[in-house]
Amino acid sequence: MLSAARAAFAERGYDGASIRAIATAAGVDPALVHHYFGTKDKLFLAAVEAPVDPAQVLPEILAEGPDRLGENIVRMLLRVWDGPARPAGLALVRSALGSEWTARLLREFLVARVLRRVVGTLDLPPAEAEARGALVASQLIGVVMIRYVLRVEPLASAPPEQLVAAVAPTVQRYLTGEVVLPG
Amino acid sequence: MLSAARAAFAERGYDGASIRAIATAAGVDPALVHHYFGTKDKLFLAAVEAPVDPAQVLPEILAEGPDRLGENIVRMLLRVWDGPARPAGLALVRSALGSEWTARLLREFLVARVLRRVVGTLDLPPAEAEARGALVASQLIGVVMIRYVLRVEPLASAPPEQLVAAVAPTVQRYLTGEVVLPG
Repeated sequence: MLSAARAAFAERGYDGASIRAIATAAGVDPALVHHYFGTKDKLFLAAVEAPVDPAQVLPEILAEGPDRLGENIVRMLLRVWDGPARPAGLALVRSALGSEWTARLLREFLVARVLRRVVGTLDLPPAEAEARGALVASQLIGVVMIRYVLRVEPLASAPPEQLVAAVAPTVQRYLTGEVVLPG
Repeated sequence: MLSAARAAFAERGYDGASIRAIATAAGVDPALVHHYFGTKDKLFLAAVEAPVDPAQVLPEILAEGPDRLGENIVRMLLRVWDGPARPAGLALVRSALGSEWTARLLREFLVARVLRRVVGTLDLPPAEAEARGALVASQLIGVVMIRYVLRVEPLASAPPEQLVAAVAPTVQRYLTGEVVLPG
C-alpha cells in the first residue's frame, strides 16, 4: 500500500491522488487503506516518512498571529530538527535528492502540507500565497541544508534563538512584508 | 590523483590539505599534480567537479560595490544555474547529500572558495564574516533547492530578474544590514 501511495502521490501530486486509486493499484479494498491509515493526509505522511505531522505543530506556529509567524515558523523548524526527528528529516531530504520522483514527493509535502496551511491563514490571493510560500520555503530549506546537512559554522552550532533572530525577519518579510513577487 | 585529492580535502578541509600530501597518497610526484592541475585551487575545483570556477565570476559580482553585492550574487547564481552548468551543479548538490564525506567537500567549496571571497571583500572581523557568509549561503542554497531541485512553483519558472528582486534584499541584509549574528 505504501509503495502504491508513494507512486500515486509522486505522479499525480497530493491533490490528484485518491485513496481509491491507491487501493486499486495496491490490489486491496479502499476500506483497508482507511483502516490502516485513516485519512489521505495520514497516508501521505506515512508515504513520505515525514518526521513530524505539520498539522500537529501548526496551532503553535499560528498562535501569536501573523506578525510573529516568521519567528514562530523558524523556531518550530529548529525545534523539530534539533530534536529526535532529525534522522528522519535528513533521510527525507537525502531521498528527495536521489531522483526526480522522490523530489516530487518532498515538494508535495512542503507545498500541500506545510506551506499552504501556513500561508493559507494570511488570506491572500492564491498566486500571491503560492509565491510567498515558495520564498519562505527557500529560506527554511536553506537553513536545513546549511545547519544540518552541510553543517557550515557558525550556523551548525549556534543556539536556536540566535538563528531565529537572524533568519526570522527574512521569513516574516516573505510572508507579510514588501516583496516583488515572482511568477 | 583526483580520488586522493577528494579524500584529503574531505578529511582535512581546503586549508589543511596539501598538494604534497595528496601526491604522496596517490603515489606520484608533487610535480605531476602541479603539471596536471596547476594550483591547489584548480585541483580542488576538479576534485569537487565544480560547475563553475568562483574566481572567474567574482569580479563581476563585486564590480558594483558592496551595496549591490546581494543583487549581483543572486543574479550570478541564477545565471550559472539557468545555464549549461546546471547538470553539474545538481550532481554536486546530490552527491553532497549522499554522505557525510561528500557533504564536507561541498561545504569546503562553499566556505573556502565562494563565501570567504565574497564576504572577504567587506573588511569584517573574521567571526562576523563567517556568520554573514553562512547566512548568505542559507538563502542561496535554499533558492537552488526550491527552484532547481524540488522545482516548486512559481519559483521554478519565474524569470531570473523577478527572483533577484525578491531574494536580493535578504542576501544584502545578511551581507551588510542589521543582523543579530549567530555564533
